[in-house]
Amino acid sequence: MRSLVEARSFQRTVIAVILLNAATIGAETSSVLVGHFGGFLHAVDRIALAVFAVELGLRVYAYRGAFLRDPWNHFDTVIVAVALIPAAGSVSVLRALRILRVLRLLSAVPSMRRVVSALLEAIPGMVSIIGLLVLVMYVSGVLATELFGRIAPGYFAELPVSLFTLFQMMTGDSWSDITRQVMAERPWAWVFFIGYILASTFVVLNLFIAVVVNAMDEQTTSSEEQHTDDQLATMLAELARLHAKIDAMRAAQAVPAGSHGDHPGDRHAPAPASPEPDA
Amino acid sequence: MRSLVEARSFQRTVIAVILLNAATIGAETSSVLVGHFGGFLHAVDRIALAVFAVELGLRVYAYRGAFLRDPWNHFDTVIVAVALIPAAGSVSVLRALRILRVLRLLSAVPSMRRVVSALLEAIPGMVSIIGLLVLVMYVSGVLATELFGRIAPGYFAELPVSLFTLFQMMTGDSWSDITRQVMAERPWAWVFFIGYILASTFVVLNLFIAVVVNAMDEQTTSSEEQHTDDQLATMLAELARLHAKIDAMRAAQAVPAGSHGDHPGDRHAPAPASPEPDA
Amino acid sequence: MRSLVEARSFQRTVIAVILLNAATIGAETSSVLVGHFGGFLHAVDRIALAVFAVELGLRVYAYRGAFLRDPWNHFDTVIVAVALIPAAGSVSVLRALRILRVLRLLSAVPSMRRVVSALLEAIPGMVSIIGLLVLVMYVSGVLATELFGRIAPGYFAELPVSLFTLFQMMTGDSWSDITRQVMAERPWAWVFFIGYILASTFVVLNLFIAVVVNAMDEQTTSSEEQHTDDQLATMLAELARLHAKIDAMRAAQAVPAGSHGDHPGDRHAPAPASPEPDA
Amino acid sequence: MRSLVEARSFQRTVIAVILLNAATIGAETSSVLVGHFGGFLHAVDRIALAVFAVELGLRVYAYRGAFLRDPWNHFDTVIVAVALIPAAGSVSVLRALRILRVLRLLSAVPSMRRVVSALLEAIPGMVSIIGLLVLVMYVSGVLATELFGRIAPGYFAELPVSLFTLFQMMTGDSWSDITRQVMAERPWAWVFFIGYILASTFVVLNLFIAVVVNAMDEQTTSSEEQHTDDQLATMLAELARLHAKIDAMRAAQAVPAGSHGDHPGDRHAPAPASPEPDA
Repeated sequence: MRSLVEARSFQRTVIAVILLNAATIGAETSSVLVGHFGGFLHAVDRIALAVFAVELGLRVYAYRGAFLRDPWNHFDTVIVAVALIPAAGSVSVLRALRILRVLRLLSAVPSMRRVVSALLEAIPGMVSIIGLLVLVMYVSGVLATELFGRIAPGYFAELPVSLFTLFQMMTGDSWSDITRQVMAERPWAWVFFIGYILASTFVVLNLFIAVVVNAMDEQTTSSEEQHTDDQLATMLAELARLHAKIDAMRAAQAVPAGSHGDHPGDRHAPAPASPEPDA
Repeated sequence: MRSLVEARSFQRTVIAVILLNAATIGAETSSVLVGHFGGFLHAVDRIALAVFAVELGLRVYAYRGAFLRDPWNHFDTVIVAVALIPAAGSVSVLRALRILRVLRLLSAVPSMRRVVSALLEAIPGMVSIIGLLVLVMYVSGVLATELFGRIAPGYFAELPVSLFTLFQMMTGDSWSDITRQVMAERPWAWVFFIGYILASTFVVLNLFIAVVVNAMDEQTTSSEEQHTDDQLATMLAELARLHAKIDAMRAAQAVPAGSHGDHPGDRHAPAPASPEPDA
Repeated sequence: MRSLVEARSFQRTVIAVILLNAATIGAETSSVLVGHFGGFLHAVDRIALAVFAVELGLRVYAYRGAFLRDPWNHFDTVIVAVALIPAAGSVSVLRALRILRVLRLLSAVPSMRRVVSALLEAIPGMVSIIGLLVLVMYVSGVLATELFGRIAPGYFAELPVSLFTLFQMMTGDSWSDITRQVMAERPWAWVFFIGYILASTFVVLNLFIAVVVNAMDEQTTSSEEQHTDDQLATMLAELARLHAKIDAMRAAQAVPAGSHGDHPGDRHAPAPASPEPDA
Repeated sequence: MRSLVEARSFQRTVIAVILLNAATIGAETSSVLVGHFGGFLHAVDRIALAVFAVELGLRVYAYRGAFLRDPWNHFDTVIVAVALIPAAGSVSVLRALRILRVLRLLSAVPSMRRVVSALLEAIPGMVSIIGLLVLVMYVSGVLATELFGRIAPGYFAELPVSLFTLFQMMTGDSWSDITRQVMAERPWAWVFFIGYILASTFVVLNLFIAVVVNAMDEQTTSSEEQHTDDQLATMLAELARLHAKIDAMRAAQAVPAGSHGDHPGDRHAPAPASPEPDA
């Protein structure tokens, strides 16, 4: 059973079904295509959903307890479960969520798995900086609501509205229009807005740097540094062997010298009893 | 006293009060919430302020002179002092500044402290490039005011207005609209604006690079390079030990050789009087 | 023949003709210049095209079979072939494609060749992340079409329109206008749009990082690391020579010792029969 | 004379005059300030110009021939020469150019000099990629003029206008508005514009990477790598000394061995005539 589930051809079939289903769900957004091939598209969709469910069932049966240990399997289970709900209902939001099935590609294609894992690994190193960014946005949001809420209600009427506007300004989208509008009544408002833009950009820059430094560290350590490390370790081992040989020579030297007669006044030759005084 | 202030549970309580106070200050921006829970929000705010003041007092009492040595304590003192002012007054700007109390999170949460310290450490390395950027903006601001002040008074009427517009153009926000408007009367204006955008972007890019290079240097040095360094130092020490052993052997060799008779014509053996001519 | 084609003066002549042709094609976009020098510009264009065709023919003749092995030659052949078509026709799109001849600069100038090769080499490392980005865009496109197609038909009426809008939002161009327009009817739409912007920006950031890390790895390995590697290799060789010398010394030491008499009980001196037990 | 010109106090006075002059030129852009302090501002301006001219004369006198060898002196001379022209005339553009005097700060402040030199050093490594970018823009510009010149004359009427629009689109400023406007008549236009944006962004990204890699290479080589290099060099020297010592020992060993009798059949001991066969 396991060998069937892990067979290349089996996995490729599943990927093909996902891609086909992605195409039919995309086609169903076009009323023209639905008018012509509606029944066919719907049938393919049903079959694909059945394939997903059966494949998941086979994998549960094949791995049993081990199935739940791989977080990717949790991901697949949730995707298929969500896909099964809207098949029954007819609410538009639920129908739209069918497209999430296509995300199964992430777990089905090995190179996608690796990319997503790498992206997720970058997140823990970003937590404190994201916390700082949230703090900067929250403080600025409350300030902006209190200071400019009545002047520009479209942008700062309430805290959630202000937070959206501040997120927009952080991305640099039309921030100057909003600032000029507020400055018409509060000429000093540029201090707040330019300060916020500088601060948030600086924090975001450092967020990016944290990701970059992380990515590079991993990349670098894994290949070149490792090679240097190996060479250095080899050299240390070679040096240790040299020490051992020379110690042996000194011991051998001490003994023949002794066969000719003792040199008790010899200052340099180490006593045979302590062949390595500097160890 | 000190052990109380440094206790984990004490610090967690303070963090919890900060977060609670952040939520109530945020809630007070909503007139609906103030209508329903105004009294409660106000009470929490008062209590939180009292907690901050007492906590600061306890820390002053616990550390006395040492309190002022940590710059984070200066920060906390200013925050609490600012928080105490608006509690008395009723001016809207002062009320808005209450939210700055939430910045106490920066000093209260250790990982935030570290992130902020790291960000601040990046600033000294940026000073010259920021100086260059200010110079480029000031020169361009005066030029733009003199050249385009009468054509586009909304953007370049006075030096401060021009500086704001140039900052906006540096962020890339709607720079082409302004340039097209000016070019309608001064067709050569694109030379100035594209030149300014290229120059300022190039300087900002180098500002970013300075920060990135700085961050990477620290990161790299601290872990991998250190390991290589340690290994190299170990190898040098091992080589020194080899030298010492071989010197000892040569000295020992020279003496037994002397016991058999002198070899004054020996070109290779070093004289016993100078056992290490190349030291 | 080959020496003619590979001569510096020959290649420089071709580059000069490309640049001259680039200028005349550019001049032909101006109706004023065409009015004054139309005949001349046309003549230069014809001559340049003839030069390109002859040069390509000479290179085919000079290299014969080897000609097809260099992918740059394929590139040149396609460019000249495309250039020959519009010379006959008069359709405006075909006429416009004449400018593609100027791309022959990429293959004619050696430093351009190198830059383009370096850019192309960066692409394979980006394939999985680009795949992830396409997946994110496709899923978001279908979702946006289903959810907002009727609310903002100008932006999300059909899947291709939605994909264009989502690409626009990914570049940060006027994304807040569109989002505010949709939020007027679907207040929760910010969840979708901010989620999409964060996800796509994060993926694009990692795409950039992949390119940067790649570029740095190559750069670093090629120069400094190589130097360190060479030094380490030299040191290992030197250590091996030291081992060989000391082995020889031990062997020599063992023999004279034997000439004085056997020391079967000598614990330290290795037996002459196995001079290097630890090799 | 030279000691006067190179004195710290002299240089600081010049910097102070530059900063004062920068302030007065900035103040002269405000008609209010000119109305109140016009005479004073004008006088300061004249005096500052005189100081610059005298300082330059002193430096020419102090260094004579060597003066022209430093490119920063060429820069200063041009700045002062430009500053002297508008003092006579009254044309507004010439008056505006007075502010360029403030650029003398770049050569007067040592840390500015270093930053500017570093920025200029980054340029040679960017030449080929900038060439590629110019090529992409020129080809796209001709194509856009031919294809969309009649549809959107405000953006693509002539080649220079198209190049400006394409530069704008490369910076991401309102590119979607222009593209949507063109797509209203040429639905396939997105292929051209998205292709252009992807290509130009990718080239610009690689331009940035070239600058970053360059900056890092220099930074890294100068400090840490240098340290590793020094250590490796020391180790190689130590190894060479070990070789020399062991060679000396073997030679000494060979002679006493000879004094006991020859061992011509000795397989291991090297012949005294060739003490270093593997050198």
